Amino acid sequence: MFVNTMPRYEILSEDAMAVLDKGWRRIVTEIGIEFLLDEAVEQFRAAGQEVRDGNRVILDPEFVLEHVAKAPREFDLQARNPQRSIHVGGSNMAFASVYGCPFVREGDERREATMNDFENLVRLSQAFPELDSPGGTICEPNDRPLDSRHLDMVYALQSLSDKPYMGSVTSGPNAEDTIRMGEILFGGREAIEATPASISLINVNSPLRYDDRMLSALVAYAKANQALVITPFLLMGAMSPVSIPSTLAQQMAEALAGIALTQLIRPGCPVVFGSFLSNTDMQSGSPSFGTPESAIGLFCTGQIARSFGLPWRSGGGLNSSQTVDAQAAYESLMTMLPTFLAGANFVMHSAGWLEAGLVSCYEKFIVDIEILRMLRHEFTAIDFDEESLAFGAHEEVGPGGHFLGAAHTLERFRECFYRPLLSSTENFERWKRNGGLDATARASGLWRKTIDEYEQPPLDDAIRAELEEYVVRRRAELGD
Amino acid sequence: MFVNTMPRYEILSEDAMAVLDKGWRRIVTEIGIEFLLDEAVEQFRAAGQEVRDGNRVILDPEFVLEHVAKAPREFDLQARNPQRSIHVGGSNMAFASVYGCPFVREGDERREATMNDFENLVRLSQAFPELDSPGGTICEPNDRPLDSRHLDMVYALQSLSDKPYMGSVTSGPNAEDTIRMGEILFGGREAIEATPASISLINVNSPLRYDDRMLSALVAYAKANQALVITPFLLMGAMSPVSIPSTLAQQMAEALAGIALTQLIRPGCPVVFGSFLSNTDMQSGSPSFGTPESAIGLFCTGQIARSFGLPWRSGGGLNSSQTVDAQAAYESLMTMLPTFLAGANFVMHSAGWLEAGLVSCYEKFIVDIEILRMLRHEFTAIDFDEESLAFGAHEEVGPGGHFLGAAHTLERFRECFYRPLLSSTENFERWKRNGGLDATARASGLWRKTIDEYEQPPLDDAIRAELEEYVVRRRAELGD
Repeated sequence: MFVNTMPRYEILSEDAMAVLDKGWRRIVTEIGIEFLLDEAVEQFRAAGQEVRDGNRVILDPEFVLEHVAKAPREFDLQARNPQRSIHVGGSNMAFASVYGCPFVREGDERREATMNDFENLVRLSQAFPELDSPGGTICEPNDRPLDSRHLDMVYALQSLSDKPYMGSVTSGPNAEDTIRMGEILFGGREAIEATPASISLINVNSPLRYDDRMLSALVAYAKANQALVITPFLLMGAMSPVSIPSTLAQQMAEALAGIALTQLIRPGCPVVFGSFLSNTDMQSGSPSFGTPESAIGLFCTGQIARSFGLPWRSGGGLNSSQTVDAQAAYESLMTMLPTFLAGANFVMHSAGWLEAGLVSCYEKFIVDIEILRMLRHEFTAIDFDEESLAFGAHEEVGPGGHFLGAAHTLERFRECFYRPLLSSTENFERWKRNGGLDATARASGLWRKTIDEYEQPPLDDAIRAELEEYVVRRRAELGD
Repeated sequence: MFVNTMPRYEILSEDAMAVLDKGWRRIVTEIGIEFLLDEAVEQFRAAGQEVRDGNRVILDPEFVLEHVAKAPREFDLQARNPQRSIHVGGSNMAFASVYGCPFVREGDERREATMNDFENLVRLSQAFPELDSPGGTICEPNDRPLDSRHLDMVYALQSLSDKPYMGSVTSGPNAEDTIRMGEILFGGREAIEATPASISLINVNSPLRYDDRMLSALVAYAKANQALVITPFLLMGAMSPVSIPSTLAQQMAEALAGIALTQLIRPGCPVVFGSFLSNTDMQSGSPSFGTPESAIGLFCTGQIARSFGLPWRSGGGLNSSQTVDAQAAYESLMTMLPTFLAGANFVMHSAGWLEAGLVSCYEKFIVDIEILRMLRHEFTAIDFDEESLAFGAHEEVGPGGHFLGAAHTLERFRECFYRPLLSSTENFERWKRNGGLDATARASGLWRKTIDEYEQPPLDDAIRAELEEYVVRRRAELGD
């Protein structure tokens, strides 16, 4: 997997960090965080924290930090193919596909996503080595019943890919199904408790509230030692104030409170400090992605998460564009380049995100893979040593010469530079002759070719049968 | 003008800097630099440097550094509208439009550029405050005679814009014309010698060679104390080795040698350390822009130029794409975001660059303006203080609430976030209703509207008449 060997870009001074530290402490002590699940509230109460109005927990910041400190700084996440297991934290960066989209875009067609789309997008995620995980709800399979579609999704993730996957968080029982299916795939409870076999996204119902469904899933996963990403969901102007410092303080309050809860439930449970921070377009009232504010949030969040010793999640190829155009591309890179600069450890929405996250797009998936490939190349440090100076090449070529035929070039021309997947450097005449296709049209050819060439990773027949049996049984129990 | 108040992103260790330092010293002492103009060679010889084979100058690195140290660390560049004068160096960043393109793209039409295009592109450069200068050869006016078109270009730059402009470098006499026209516009030789009224691009004929035309222009401008940008032209694999460190050492050797020459001619002449560093696509043999290598070059060059105390030029909206698609956008930002991270002081090709620099594109111009606006916002440091925490907003809204109606929001909603020029956050249905235009189609409407609303900045009638008279007379002298 990718290790980011370049320096981190940090913009917060010590004074700024002190201001933010004061900010989150004030929020948790004077306002508190609402936990809309009795079991969660009782955990805090039993640990000596004050509870107001039934579910609002007033937190002692030192208590929060003491529990946050129990979370591992880094952890492994296992894949059923051990070569695809990943390490979350440190200088490592793991990339997962887009998550949570009700719609799909394929060329000029935008439609409700289906199970077929879900499976295709998992296949694409499996095919590209730039992705460490297909993620979870890569799109909503709207043609499957709501109550049992999580079973179809988890099974597709487990069988069509051999990379780590994300679990269902729509309810506690759905999380339990994910855990059970992980036990089947990985050989029992002990195996997945020793090293987590899933990582799941717990969104905060920001501001300052965790809802019962997400909390039930959190509790289930934490008890099974499955990894969690605790993510305040912050569109400034809607879920947080129209101020970056204020929003960062809120993000710290919300994330740290949730992380403390995971450690109350199971000390040492692997957990990731999550960030999903952008802003509302105050003219349209719509969420806005790939914004300057979002990039600033990324730089700051990396620094903040590291100050708590926590692995962190943010970034992705976020944008608001309706189609795979210049806007989709510059907004996506306006988030993804800061993601690398800030060194995010777990990156959701790395491929396929379009239209403010409403759409999983096949062509955008390919554009994002190209961006990931470029950035992985860019953030791999190079050696500056005597040999790299290649003085012999200068001697050979001399003033006014040309390096294409130099011995130094001929020895290295295959590997010396980044080689694009999607981008074209063809001259205009040749490009025209080859059809004059823009990047989006070329991306369409590339994803189709990738699906055609996809090979399903092998899976033991007995395990497959057991998984299928589980899905069939549970679907029936759920009435679908 | 824009002041970049964010930290610089630097990736070179002290050891790496020492390796590069050794590299350029070895090149200038063991190979030397060719200067294909006797006057330049004589300057070096008279100052005690060894000359081999008639025009190859073997340089003492200490001699080079001694002269480089005479160049100002920062300098002013005057505009005929004093409010548009700029300061080059320090944390300041000045942005100029694309430069040197023989073709123009307007919508789906690609054609030879004309004087009408030149004028339109100057008007666009004048209209957008994100640009500090229209640059110089914003496109080649191919419908004007080759020998005298520099007069038409300088006159258009002087009359259609009141921002600083770049001078002709196609020959010594053409540079003299630029200087003479500057004298007319700014009120005499003394006025432009006191503060330069033009900045001109001297490209090195890399590797390790300055040609006679560029040198003649360099000499003319330096004598008149006009600002110069000395730029090695480095496409790795063609004009330099396929190694970033080796190319950076070559860039230092070439740029420092040329800068030393400017200071031999006129100590204190304002000069900029230039960088134009990308790579060849080793599969197609074409130049490749917006690459990871180019971004790494940018990070390094900023650090190198600062180590010599020199203002520096690099960056822009570079890309290889044939059309204004996703590739054009991600490649452009892949260069422009590093331009801001590295804090380039003078940025050519900031708006309009397409197709590896062969094309000035109207729609791309608008895409680039949007990118510039976003990055200027992103690289403006924000305050992290007690007030920015906006605790009152959290108190007012509380857990589960919404910030749109909060007092803190209502007081700030107009100015709190970046407001896009081109990007759309419209929901899909509304976007469809409004024509379903992608970013490039919307850009087309925006540049046309800008040209329609353009107002020519006032110019004294007597000065205008004198400039016109000069152009007419010189055109006749040149036989056109």
